[in-house]
Amino acid sequence: MTNANQRNQRKKQPALVRRRLLDNGARLCVEQGVAGLTLQAVADAADVTKGGLLHHFSTKQALIEEIFSERLQAFDTSIKQAMKLDPEPSGCFTRAYITATLELIEKDDFIQWAALMMAMLTEPGLKKRWTQWLEQSLEQHRDTDSAPEMRLARYAVDGLWLAGLLDEEERVATKREALHLHSQLIEMTRKP
Amino acid sequence: MTNANQRNQRKKQPALVRRRLLDNGARLCVEQGVAGLTLQAVADAADVTKGGLLHHFSTKQALIEEIFSERLQAFDTSIKQAMKLDPEPSGCFTRAYITATLELIEKDDFIQWAALMMAMLTEPGLKKRWTQWLEQSLEQHRDTDSAPEMRLARYAVDGLWLAGLLDEEERVATKREALHLHSQLIEMTRKP
Repeated sequence: MTNANQRNQRKKQPALVRRRLLDNGARLCVEQGVAGLTLQAVADAADVTKGGLLHHFSTKQALIEEIFSERLQAFDTSIKQAMKLDPEPSGCFTRAYITATLELIEKDDFIQWAALMMAMLTEPGLKKRWTQWLEQSLEQHRDTDSAPEMRLARYAVDGLWLAGLLDEEERVATKREALHLHSQLIEMTRKP
Repeated sequence: MTNANQRNQRKKQPALVRRRLLDNGARLCVEQGVAGLTLQAVADAADVTKGGLLHHFSTKQALIEEIFSERLQAFDTSIKQAMKLDPEPSGCFTRAYITATLELIEKDDFIQWAALMMAMLTEPGLKKRWTQWLEQSLEQHRDTDSAPEMRLARYAVDGLWLAGLLDEEERVATKREALHLHSQLIEMTRKP
């Protein structure tokens, strides 16, 4: 099949093209930084014409926001799943947040995704999406998760996430001691 | 006095020129990102010739490393000062780390410096300086600060730092509740 034919073939699979654009966009963001990313580079990497890319994402900002939104959505889903398995109301959001964050740290592509999230969080618009998501989540679970010890437990797992991003050795140590760290963090949500 | 005269005057004050270069370099790093920084822009902002700048910092990397080193040195000094006031050996480094980090968060220019540190930590060389500093500090205080609860307490204040950087409201809340948060974090280093 020729290259042109392959492109024609993919035209009928817009979801696949979109996926390739998002995946290549995310990879290039990590490699070149969010500021250095160009739509042309993403189109080239995904083997899509610039016009094909613009059909899915009309601006660089739109592409970056979608990459970010997908990650945030996956994290949110992971938290909701963990909450379903927790019978205890007090601190249930915080424990699920801890579990979901540790799951991220244990993934093979953690460094790539964490570096991407960190780079994105330097963009004011995306930073706001994150803080809005967190505020809404905390508001929703105000009755069960607003105690100061819950806040500290969430900060502790955030710090663990940051340490994993900054230091590969720390991340290896975290993976090795994941079960123990998990139980210690969960313990923080159960202080009297 | 003419501009040229001002420059001649400053030639006799190399420490002052160096200070201006570091301060303007730091500011431009925050505004434009580390990747976008040029030595010419730093020279212009500091009202120093490019040659004058190169006399102090031969490469962009050298300038950035010095900006980073100064911050790290100040943080290290702040920790050592806090340790002097702590009569209890167990967890003394961790408590001083907590105190010094909270002091950073409370400063008026926290956002600027934190954003700069975060941007710099995306550079592999600077990331390594941070992790080496932390490893050496922890090695030095292994007998008193290697327990898992110390690690969690440090992670918690790191998370607080990150939250302050990501969300101005969180930072205002942290400043307001600084005393209470401080005592809660210190408490974490005194678990049996």
